[in-house]
Amino acid sequence: MTLMLEEAERPNSGPHMLTIDNQVVKLVLTRFIHNELTKAGFQKAVLGLSGGIDSALSCYLAATALGSENVLAVRMPYQASSPESLEHAQLVIDNLGVQSETVDITPMVEPLFEASPDISAGRKGNIMARMRMTILFDRSAAFKALVIGTSNKSEMLLGYGTIYGDLASAVNPLGDLYKTQVRQLARAIGVPQPIIDKPPSADLIPGQTDESDLGFTYAEVDRLLYMLVDERYSTDECVEAGYPRSFVQTALEMVRKAQYKRVMPIIPKLSGRTIGHDFRYLRDWGT
Amino acid sequence: MTLMLEEAERPNSGPHMLTIDNQVVKLVLTRFIHNELTKAGFQKAVLGLSGGIDSALSCYLAATALGSENVLAVRMPYQASSPESLEHAQLVIDNLGVQSETVDITPMVEPLFEASPDISAGRKGNIMARMRMTILFDRSAAFKALVIGTSNKSEMLLGYGTIYGDLASAVNPLGDLYKTQVRQLARAIGVPQPIIDKPPSADLIPGQTDESDLGFTYAEVDRLLYMLVDERYSTDECVEAGYPRSFVQTALEMVRKAQYKRVMPIIPKLSGRTIGHDFRYLRDWGT
Repeated sequence: MTLMLEEAERPNSGPHMLTIDNQVVKLVLTRFIHNELTKAGFQKAVLGLSGGIDSALSCYLAATALGSENVLAVRMPYQASSPESLEHAQLVIDNLGVQSETVDITPMVEPLFEASPDISAGRKGNIMARMRMTILFDRSAAFKALVIGTSNKSEMLLGYGTIYGDLASAVNPLGDLYKTQVRQLARAIGVPQPIIDKPPSADLIPGQTDESDLGFTYAEVDRLLYMLVDERYSTDECVEAGYPRSFVQTALEMVRKAQYKRVMPIIPKLSGRTIGHDFRYLRDWGT
Repeated sequence: MTLMLEEAERPNSGPHMLTIDNQVVKLVLTRFIHNELTKAGFQKAVLGLSGGIDSALSCYLAATALGSENVLAVRMPYQASSPESLEHAQLVIDNLGVQSETVDITPMVEPLFEASPDISAGRKGNIMARMRMTILFDRSAAFKALVIGTSNKSEMLLGYGTIYGDLASAVNPLGDLYKTQVRQLARAIGVPQPIIDKPPSADLIPGQTDESDLGFTYAEVDRLLYMLVDERYSTDECVEAGYPRSFVQTALEMVRKAQYKRVMPIIPKLSGRTIGHDFRYLRDWGT
């Protein structure tokens, strides 16, 4: 089974390096969602629908995997969220016919914002992301469902997401797709065009975009991350391939600094068998 | 370095099987806290102080490791929390001289409780645990600190805790100590007696205790978990050692069902290097 294009079709650099086989990836991801839920004894999924492309794609995949009636899409606006975000989420709900709910997070987060008059936009964003996680996991308990994640590989590598917030889920179908690949699959799978076309944004401040926050475009950084992570290029090799050294170093530093968001809390080893060290798998627990 | 008593001193079953060397464990855990924070560029810690023994012990360890002035203890009562819990937390704060703050979570959680009139005690408990996590991580950003966890090995193995709630932290010093061992170390380290003596409780409903929720005592289950996990006994061997088969099976089933709380969200492997599969360590990223 080929997930990426054949070597011959795939130049070592350039825009097509990240091209995936949409049909195969769609099949793998819908089977993944179905299998993981079934193994855990579930048939239903809950996810947060922000109006952006990642959660839209997750929703399309979940609806295909489980049937629309088994998917609950939750819109969780804050008072400063863009009305367009809500409309784009509604487009997905209407197109797929999934179940839906809208929960305004404003009354839950305001007491915390008001208690810290000097609170930064970053802290506000983290509080909002964690409040949404709290609501999604609560809805999953009420709906007897698992929470489907919506974080892509670019965000997870760069740390552009909130640990225990939007990075939290039970299963994350998009975690091995770069943003560029999310766009490609979203296009192939029929995610509404306005959602694909708009610039990615965390929707915390009007006009904010991911790419202005990050300082580079996903198109640029995805190709670099692919070389660094998937192809294990060194810094020098990336520079030889045409990337400015400062860009390579910035990306590497972001990936390093975000490592804590990709692992469980560290536990010091005291005993003969420690959670996260040598108590990781249950495969020998058949007795 | 011996963390547990020597084999000859340690009977294969019975109350002393879990006995630790308090001095050595205290040294290991305070160094662990200091080293992990320093490595990540931090000098300060934040933790939630519930009034219970686990968070009290974490607070003593953090204060010893970092100095009292570098520890912020946050009390986060809900309107139904026991006033005794607040008082016990205050005992710890006064004894150690750590910095402290009190945040009432009632206004933040009530909108969610009110939106679901049929909400269960379990769902309420999870919402409260996640709200407290949200506050702790926000305080850690404001205080330029890391969040110290307070989950012990018994709770983590049995799944008696909220994923992305009280189970979330940056570093977790207690994660390899059974509850019985937490009690032993807390006694040795000078945690106030009323905190050690009272029955463990999640403090969600008046009169609720962990042991009535679980259906067995920590003293009983810790010895069994030690045999199953640390000593890798089979079910039959535990039964031969005197445990009722139904108790062994119940404990095993709880450990199995809680596995998802001890691992990161599952990501399907599509690429040559996938987060959580073969992109786990940064040790080859020296370039």
